[in-house]
Amino acid sequence: MEWTERQQRIVEIVKDSGSITGEKIAAMLNLTRATLRPDLTVLTMSGVLVARPRVGYSYREDLGPSPIMERMLQLRVCAFKSMPVTVLEDASIYEATVAMFTQNVGSLTVVGTDRVLLGMISRKDIMKASLGKIDLQQVPVGVIMTRMPNIYMTTLDEPVLSAAKKLVQHQVDSLPVVEGYVDESGNECYEVVGRFTKTNVTKLFVEIAETR
Amino acid sequence: MEWTERQQRIVEIVKDSGSITGEKIAAMLNLTRATLRPDLTVLTMSGVLVARPRVGYSYREDLGPSPIMERMLQLRVCAFKSMPVTVLEDASIYEATVAMFTQNVGSLTVVGTDRVLLGMISRKDIMKASLGKIDLQQVPVGVIMTRMPNIYMTTLDEPVLSAAKKLVQHQVDSLPVVEGYVDESGNECYEVVGRFTKTNVTKLFVEIAETR
Repeated sequence: MEWTERQQRIVEIVKDSGSITGEKIAAMLNLTRATLRPDLTVLTMSGVLVARPRVGYSYREDLGPSPIMERMLQLRVCAFKSMPVTVLEDASIYEATVAMFTQNVGSLTVVGTDRVLLGMISRKDIMKASLGKIDLQQVPVGVIMTRMPNIYMTTLDEPVLSAAKKLVQHQVDSLPVVEGYVDESGNECYEVVGRFTKTNVTKLFVEIAETR
Repeated sequence: MEWTERQQRIVEIVKDSGSITGEKIAAMLNLTRATLRPDLTVLTMSGVLVARPRVGYSYREDLGPSPIMERMLQLRVCAFKSMPVTVLEDASIYEATVAMFTQNVGSLTVVGTDRVLLGMISRKDIMKASLGKIDLQQVPVGVIMTRMPNIYMTTLDEPVLSAAKKLVQHQVDSLPVVEGYVDESGNECYEVVGRFTKTNVTKLFVEIAETR
């Protein structure tokens, strides 16, 4: 966000004073409270300043660490994940599409024996396929899925914050939740035990914001 | 989440004592610290208890209101929305699909003259269309879009929390951000000025959790 020169001066004044009323800021800038109101609204709405009744405005970085933040940082994926929705590699794209509708999910994990993660298929993959001239009833999902090891994953004990960062950084809507192990042949395997999505994060955001 | 009897007793003990160390809880239950560890881990990971170094465990509801919560409740959609990605009603489904790929979005707002909101088209709508036998290059988006007034919307000054609740409750990935007005014929119109998505909420969650 870009700030006007006046907005930057307001932020400096608030930073210097710890907390200060709108009237006092106006006085310091030789402006009326009414002239200042739009600036204070923009700064509050974007979270740069925090307005509190009777106390006035304070700068967000001065809020300091809080118990609610500590709680947020301790939350783990295991408590907020959803059930996995899986499909076999040789299912047709048509079958996968129907599964997405009936289960109301935006992506499926493609698994082999023992629920071992093979790949992921998303609405985006299916849309891409339908742009081409391929027969959705004949072509198996294995042909169009994103295949391991090109899958971003999370685990039951990963902090929710770090899993949410993966969703943002890698621009994916969903991460498979996996438990890793080494099979008899010495291969690294990942059993799918859940999924963690932007929907889970949005629900958690609402839940936290309403805890008061 | 379902709690075992022992976990419920732990929560009661922590509630009664304000904050208490793991050792003391173990002593009160006549158990070793090691036996108790898995229960304390589950209760902490799910956010019921908060663990703090040297202080011990406390119950989440005892955290009370905090400045960071006040800040979260003041955030408005205007500061966190994305740019709208729009398409005209007579564009083909094929063109809309290509636009979703090139703009990397999960849905498009369908607009008329003056960017007036007519409807929304999502990846889900396009997947449904491709299951049928329709020609994506011939059929216009107007045929398959979700049409006004069946669209959930948000506004620039709506609190982020309430917009996030709409996403969760109505199970949609995206809300058009609109400015309402009444046109010359007396019709209520909504000009599309942005979009607010689960991605915006996920980014905000990460940003807030990292503000320390």
